[in-house]
Amino acid sequence: MAESAERDARHQARMQRKKALIDAKIAQAQDDYGLLLVHAGNGKGKSSSAFGMVARALGHGMRVGVVQFIKGAASTGEEAFFRRFPDQVQWFVMGEGFTWETQDRQRDIAMAGEAWQVARRLLADEGIGLVVLDELNIALKHGYLQLDQVLADIEARPLLQHVVVTGRGALPELIEAADTVTEMALVKHAFKAGVKAQKGVEF
Amino acid sequence: MAESAERDARHQARMQRKKALIDAKIAQAQDDYGLLLVHAGNGKGKSSSAFGMVARALGHGMRVGVVQFIKGAASTGEEAFFRRFPDQVQWFVMGEGFTWETQDRQRDIAMAGEAWQVARRLLADEGIGLVVLDELNIALKHGYLQLDQVLADIEARPLLQHVVVTGRGALPELIEAADTVTEMALVKHAFKAGVKAQKGVEF
Repeated sequence: MAESAERDARHQARMQRKKALIDAKIAQAQDDYGLLLVHAGNGKGKSSSAFGMVARALGHGMRVGVVQFIKGAASTGEEAFFRRFPDQVQWFVMGEGFTWETQDRQRDIAMAGEAWQVARRLLADEGIGLVVLDELNIALKHGYLQLDQVLADIEARPLLQHVVVTGRGALPELIEAADTVTEMALVKHAFKAGVKAQKGVEF
Repeated sequence: MAESAERDARHQARMQRKKALIDAKIAQAQDDYGLLLVHAGNGKGKSSSAFGMVARALGHGMRVGVVQFIKGAASTGEEAFFRRFPDQVQWFVMGEGFTWETQDRQRDIAMAGEAWQVARRLLADEGIGLVVLDELNIALKHGYLQLDQVLADIEARPLLQHVVVTGRGALPELIEAADTVTEMALVKHAFKAGVKAQKGVEF
């Protein structure tokens, strides 16, 4: 209950700031504000879609921050590509491998904590228009991070900053906090038909 | 029935070529082949995910072709960004606007036909590792293109070339032909809550 009340208070504070911005009646920026998007589900495309948004943001001249909470979970191709733009993109890969490969909970918690410190820094930077928290849902689902702290830091971000959170098993509290939630559902998958992961598609 | 038999024959031909490639036992390429992916559903992320794959492919040094069947349907930010890489990316925008804005069926059919000629050229180019057919599903759903011709051209592509088709209302025949199908389902959308489209997210 206390946590919930805290969250309500934070939400109210953010809404008040949002209202203050709107009240300022800045032309065009009247209802511009950063969205929190969640890409959930068991299908493909959660991370790819976030990285498509990175391309989009770069096309608009924005600066972007990416934190990958699980190394190896996302494409090496995308990382290689976006690292070509160090002036616009800050890219961090945390952890040392899949959680189901490491099987060391304390190490995973420590890694996730370090990754969150990086994320917090990006979430506090007004110069960054888009923050991608790739596979954050996995870290939250496993309890590697304090949900309340994560929600607080996201909610405290600059008003115009967009955040995308990806990964299976999005927690209800995050979905509640989000502006837009997309569920990527698996309809059919080549892997299931015995096809090897393909470069340029899977990694 | 005749169409179905033709499709079966084409499929068999492609499978035979695939088998021939595998039989050649080229190390590592043993089971490398181009996938057909379909991003369907009413949620966000269908095109973004395809463009994330473009970034991924570029990171691997591949060349990429993009045909947008509906101008204005996708992000101007992504187009602006990827046009920075003319050596690796060929980008074509077809049509003159949303179909529901033009309300001129014959013009839309002509536009779609022209767009498909561009797509066919990309689908015939062995040097291109990934072809994105953005919003093709819309053109197919409205009957602006011959489904059978489209499936034939996709199936006849170079064996290692990946194809991604996006858009709502994917036809069953395309889903049947696909290796991987992802349904992007809308769980929650900021628009519905009265929020204006945001730069870097929606366009």
